Amino acid sequence: MQKNRKLTIGLIQAAASDNVAANMKKNGLMTKEAAKKGAQIICLHELYRTKYFPQWGKKDFTAQSETIPGESTKLFSKLAQKLKVVIIAPIFEKEGSNFYNSAAVINANGKLMNTYRKIHIPRDPLFYEKDYFKPGNFGYQVYKTKYATFSVLICYDQWFPEAARIAVLNGADILFYPTAIGWFKNKPEEEWREAWETIQRSHAIANGVHVACVNRVGLEGNLNFWGSSFVCDSFGKIIKKASEDKEEILVVNLDLGKNKGIQDGWGFLKNRRPDTYGLLSK
Amino acid sequence: MQKNRKLTIGLIQAAASDNVAANMKKNGLMTKEAAKKGAQIICLHELYRTKYFPQWGKKDFTAQSETIPGESTKLFSKLAQKLKVVIIAPIFEKEGSNFYNSAAVINANGKLMNTYRKIHIPRDPLFYEKDYFKPGNFGYQVYKTKYATFSVLICYDQWFPEAARIAVLNGADILFYPTAIGWFKNKPEEEWREAWETIQRSHAIANGVHVACVNRVGLEGNLNFWGSSFVCDSFGKIIKKASEDKEEILVVNLDLGKNKGIQDGWGFLKNRRPDTYGLLSK
Repeated sequence: MQKNRKLTIGLIQAAASDNVAANMKKNGLMTKEAAKKGAQIICLHELYRTKYFPQWGKKDFTAQSETIPGESTKLFSKLAQKLKVVIIAPIFEKEGSNFYNSAAVINANGKLMNTYRKIHIPRDPLFYEKDYFKPGNFGYQVYKTKYATFSVLICYDQWFPEAARIAVLNGADILFYPTAIGWFKNKPEEEWREAWETIQRSHAIANGVHVACVNRVGLEGNLNFWGSSFVCDSFGKIIKKASEDKEEILVVNLDLGKNKGIQDGWGFLKNRRPDTYGLLSK
Repeated sequence: MQKNRKLTIGLIQAAASDNVAANMKKNGLMTKEAAKKGAQIICLHELYRTKYFPQWGKKDFTAQSETIPGESTKLFSKLAQKLKVVIIAPIFEKEGSNFYNSAAVINANGKLMNTYRKIHIPRDPLFYEKDYFKPGNFGYQVYKTKYATFSVLICYDQWFPEAARIAVLNGADILFYPTAIGWFKNKPEEEWREAWETIQRSHAIANGVHVACVNRVGLEGNLNFWGSSFVCDSFGKIIKKASEDKEEILVVNLDLGKNKGIQDGWGFLKNRRPDTYGLLSK
């Protein structure tokens, strides 16, 4: 099924406005453009359809939520089928009276796959996500698609090596991290971005897989999103990186064939000692 | 007990020869020198008393092993007591007919603490450790000393985020990684060292603790040890780094008070989801 290990992915680094319809339209157009440039799996940034509203804390943004299936999946299912691409669309999901920070994943035939609901939910100044989202209750997902087998983890999940490891133990060859992360307005702390890039490269190194991070750009309220979306190979080496302030379609060629050689060479997966890891799940 | 969170540590980056007595003597002298420069916790490199013999595969080096207590702990217990320093001395340990890649840890009063026996054992070209060492059977150790609470993990352990996380869940504020890692002779692959540094910085970031790595230098057989011992703070930022080819005593001032601020700020430890991590220990 996955004999050809070469692959092209597309990351949609975009800004968001208050206009939900306009955000959808823009990301739809950028997705078409990415496919035209050869991308086979296309990933949008976290909560792509709205501003990053959790920075405002305890307000009511539920009008901007949507169900799965719903408006976004309708749009992207059509595109996926037409363009023969896999699409990862991260949205503010509503299910009954519960809300999640989720990723809808659509296969290249236009069919919905399982939803991933963000498992690690922060509550920090300007990132008041616990006020809005329930923690993900579907576990870690692995998507076996025509082009590659991958997992989606969302933003704050990226700081947890546990999540990356589980995704790889489940068979993922790429980890996609749709993200919304930035500096406090007028306070560009380079060491924050450096830590962010380092932790994600470390997941590639520890697991011998490719990692793709998709961030948004632009100033929204008190958050200045730092873009810098990137893809690194299974050695943690950055293959391509986007600007810190421009909307961009990052189209990147990968060779997943590298993963196995590196996994066998370092031997990290086969030399784990699960018998000593009991504390991790306590 | 640990109200003063400022601390000075000393890393002994050295080369090793075939002369076990000479290696002991040199590391003893460097330890004294480190203490003179203010170091309170002093860490030697992996298997400090011998060449890195596991590169040769299936030979008999058991004559170079020692017990705990034994020759090394005798020497370093005296020094620890006299200099009022904590010493981490990694050795080729013999217990009955079993052999381990271990770290003897000696408190500032000269008393032996629990031994840590390396848990993750590689078997790769030039790193045939499975031929020599049984996997550690004492679990992860946390050392509560006068100066700081820390864990010791040895070389290959450094590639496993699981080990770092468990050490921190057990209360460690610093992770010491005595190491013997290098390039194949005449093949300096910069990306190997880059991956090595990145994975260890990532443990600092994911856990909000300081990390100290002590490597050896020099050419032995077909391995060219790349030195570059370093200490990074709880943001993953490198505070100080040694050369790649010289014997050096790296004396580094830390403020462990930074750890808690960063742990609380990022919130990674409190926002873990152990209920979703069951697969890690299976």
